[in-house]
Amino acid sequence: MASHHSERRLAVSRDEIARLLERHRVLEAMAHQQESPRRDLLEQLQHKQNVAELGKRLRVMHAADIAYVLESLPPDDRLAVWRQVAPEQAGDVFVEASDAVRRFLVSEVGDEAMLPLLARLDAEDLAYVAESLPEELSARAYAALEATQRSLFDDSLQYERTQIGHHMTREWVEVDDRQTVGDVLHMLRTRGGLPPQTDNVLVVDARHVLRGLIPLPALLVQDPRTPVAGLVTEEVASFSPHDEAASAFGVFERYDLVSAPVIDERGKLVGRLTVDAVMDAMREASSLQVLRSAGLNQDEDLFASLWDSARNRGPWLAINLVTAFISSRVIGQFEGVIQQLAALAALMPIVASIGGNTGNQTMALVIRSLATDQPHPHRGRQMLNKELTIGVVNGVTWGLLVGVFAIIIYAQLGLGLVMAGAVLLNLVIAAVAGVAIPLALHAVGRDPAHGASVLLTFITDAMGFFLFLGLARVFLV
Amino acid sequence: MASHHSERRLAVSRDEIARLLERHRVLEAMAHQQESPRRDLLEQLQHKQNVAELGKRLRVMHAADIAYVLESLPPDDRLAVWRQVAPEQAGDVFVEASDAVRRFLVSEVGDEAMLPLLARLDAEDLAYVAESLPEELSARAYAALEATQRSLFDDSLQYERTQIGHHMTREWVEVDDRQTVGDVLHMLRTRGGLPPQTDNVLVVDARHVLRGLIPLPALLVQDPRTPVAGLVTEEVASFSPHDEAASAFGVFERYDLVSAPVIDERGKLVGRLTVDAVMDAMREASSLQVLRSAGLNQDEDLFASLWDSARNRGPWLAINLVTAFISSRVIGQFEGVIQQLAALAALMPIVASIGGNTGNQTMALVIRSLATDQPHPHRGRQMLNKELTIGVVNGVTWGLLVGVFAIIIYAQLGLGLVMAGAVLLNLVIAAVAGVAIPLALHAVGRDPAHGASVLLTFITDAMGFFLFLGLARVFLV
Repeated sequence: MASHHSERRLAVSRDEIARLLERHRVLEAMAHQQESPRRDLLEQLQHKQNVAELGKRLRVMHAADIAYVLESLPPDDRLAVWRQVAPEQAGDVFVEASDAVRRFLVSEVGDEAMLPLLARLDAEDLAYVAESLPEELSARAYAALEATQRSLFDDSLQYERTQIGHHMTREWVEVDDRQTVGDVLHMLRTRGGLPPQTDNVLVVDARHVLRGLIPLPALLVQDPRTPVAGLVTEEVASFSPHDEAASAFGVFERYDLVSAPVIDERGKLVGRLTVDAVMDAMREASSLQVLRSAGLNQDEDLFASLWDSARNRGPWLAINLVTAFISSRVIGQFEGVIQQLAALAALMPIVASIGGNTGNQTMALVIRSLATDQPHPHRGRQMLNKELTIGVVNGVTWGLLVGVFAIIIYAQLGLGLVMAGAVLLNLVIAAVAGVAIPLALHAVGRDPAHGASVLLTFITDAMGFFLFLGLARVFLV
Repeated sequence: MASHHSERRLAVSRDEIARLLERHRVLEAMAHQQESPRRDLLEQLQHKQNVAELGKRLRVMHAADIAYVLESLPPDDRLAVWRQVAPEQAGDVFVEASDAVRRFLVSEVGDEAMLPLLARLDAEDLAYVAESLPEELSARAYAALEATQRSLFDDSLQYERTQIGHHMTREWVEVDDRQTVGDVLHMLRTRGGLPPQTDNVLVVDARHVLRGLIPLPALLVQDPRTPVAGLVTEEVASFSPHDEAASAFGVFERYDLVSAPVIDERGKLVGRLTVDAVMDAMREASSLQVLRSAGLNQDEDLFASLWDSARNRGPWLAINLVTAFISSRVIGQFEGVIQQLAALAALMPIVASIGGNTGNQTMALVIRSLATDQPHPHRGRQMLNKELTIGVVNGVTWGLLVGVFAIIIYAQLGLGLVMAGAVLLNLVIAAVAGVAIPLALHAVGRDPAHGASVLLTFITDAMGFFLFLGLARVFLV
């Protein structure tokens, strides 16, 4: 039976490595305790065996799995495992590892030890990891490239991280449409292999302009004497290298693509975007989105320094503190009223919180609609109408509920009515803000998911306090 | 030059359709205004032309694009466009459309009109859309299937929506490992076509147990006389039909897969998981996660009924209201203190809000680590140590800052010190809760991303109020 790369198998490998590392630590600790150059021979042998076993285990693992294991290990264990990675695997593991792990390895292992590894990488992989390398090391690795590889490297780096040009590969198979299927098959056999995730061959003309593509299965199932011209699919999903990488996921998903040609403005073929790169970009964007919505600039290594953590979390906390200060000053204007009726202080967070919650619901739906739906001229108004209606209905329902709560607790009809009114008004404001903020951010070309929530919560907090305490001043004291 | 399915081209199609629909509405409105059976002949002609143009435009569009356009149209326009979809395209469009659009179409068009469309679907597609159909209609469509198709249908439905069995296809190409490359190529040619997203042929033994696979490129580049046995890759990433669909994304991404075999516990081949299904499942899961984190159970159609919206948003608002009521009662216990020092009411939301923000940051990092990292025995303690350290550092920094703010505004040293102390203590609590809540949810097998934020905000709110007002009672009044 075939052996399977499954999650279960990866787990077994991880447990095995954890066991070996545990033993590694014990042996190291024993060696230290003896604190002597006279280290027990048997123990040295044990240690050697242990290390050899670790190396053996790693050699049968996929590079991506080793990278995955490295990421989750504390610094000492990371180095112990990295030292046992076979030289022919080390390049792949380095490319597959996260940026944080790559920086860690470079700083621990040193430039001299990294150079041979970098020299084994092709230009595209080197460009991909270049950001994680110190400038000097990156320059030395570049200098070691051949001339053709250097121009590939330069080409890779001319695009932004968010652009398709950064994520595309420059490996593809192209054919001439005057050939037969047999000619193409012969060419492929001579070539001896295909680039990864090749599901079609690209048909170009003499000026290198893309004319269409032929799916591999078509080549397989046709008689070798068939001319390829009749097999060319001319309806092709294609990209510009300047397109946003994030937009590719939707297109790949909609048309069920495995790879798609990338062409410049004159229609010339400049690259190929493959589904694995699209999935990587999507994964990165989606995890970044989750972290950002919690107010973090980026992911944090479990073993990150205190300083790195502070820089990651500080800016968001500072912004929130400023908005909290302003809300606090809004309340401060009503201290006289609160002194007369302390119940207001206990009830006001309810008004603010229900506004924030409904506003965030509205905003999540608007952001999703902006991301997936077709833009049309009346969309903004339609969404506003819908959310205002729901805001009023919710405002009446929840307003009555919290009003009754206030009346039960404080036995004051007026307090209940003021509370209900403030909730209703704040939900209307939350609906307007929940629609307007993402639409405005989207209109000026900014990501509506980033930062919108702080702004909205600020508005519903400040307005919630202002409406409730203001109404109380007018009607109650 | 080849024509390209690009985002730009889709946008042109959409604008074209919007224009035709606009004209459609104008003509309908004119017909109504005349309120007569004597409708102007020229106008009727215009209307017919308009409809014909719409149909023509739709016929050159990809089914997925039409579904995408349908989703973004208001009910009337949706029906106008749907009526012009060609019968041979309608099935694909229906399958590609969202669940909400499918339900809408069925309820508007009626069972009788749906049956011929459903009869054109294969068993897998029918099973896929069955959830959106009324029971009776689904039973009638099932009855119309052939016996073999029926068993395929039953097979599809035996898995949960979250399991790989629900997302896999039952179409693949299998070969015998005693053949040559030429034999396989001949078989493929006789077959006449390959299932979508076929990047390999699967090698099975007589008992239908998977032995490995051969990538298509290997078949293309090898001499036809080569025996396939030598080409079989035995290291295969495979899945069980009972595995979680969400776990497949990571495996496809890690090993750059286009398709992977699905095998039962005895190693027998039961299906094939393709990258498009994995991307669909990922997209669904990730958008659901964003909506849930804002307190919505599911996505909402822009044209959803008020009742559907209320059911979608209500539960979360109700839970939040309960926690807000409890926090309000915590404050209520300190009304005497607030009466004596109304400044407390203005400052207390700052203590609560900074606790909530730092706690949510911690929680996002812990959830991400739970989702991506290798579990190891000391992880919980390591994370807690790290977050506690950061909590104390943040607590001292931000505590001093808000303390100084309070002193400047209210000119009371004691108030500033109480404020700083409360912030420090609340940040320690936020760090503990931010680590403990997701770990606890994860330990009992629940999704740590869902609902964790309400619980955390509740704790930091209630404790923030309690600590600040409690310290004030002890030290200030």
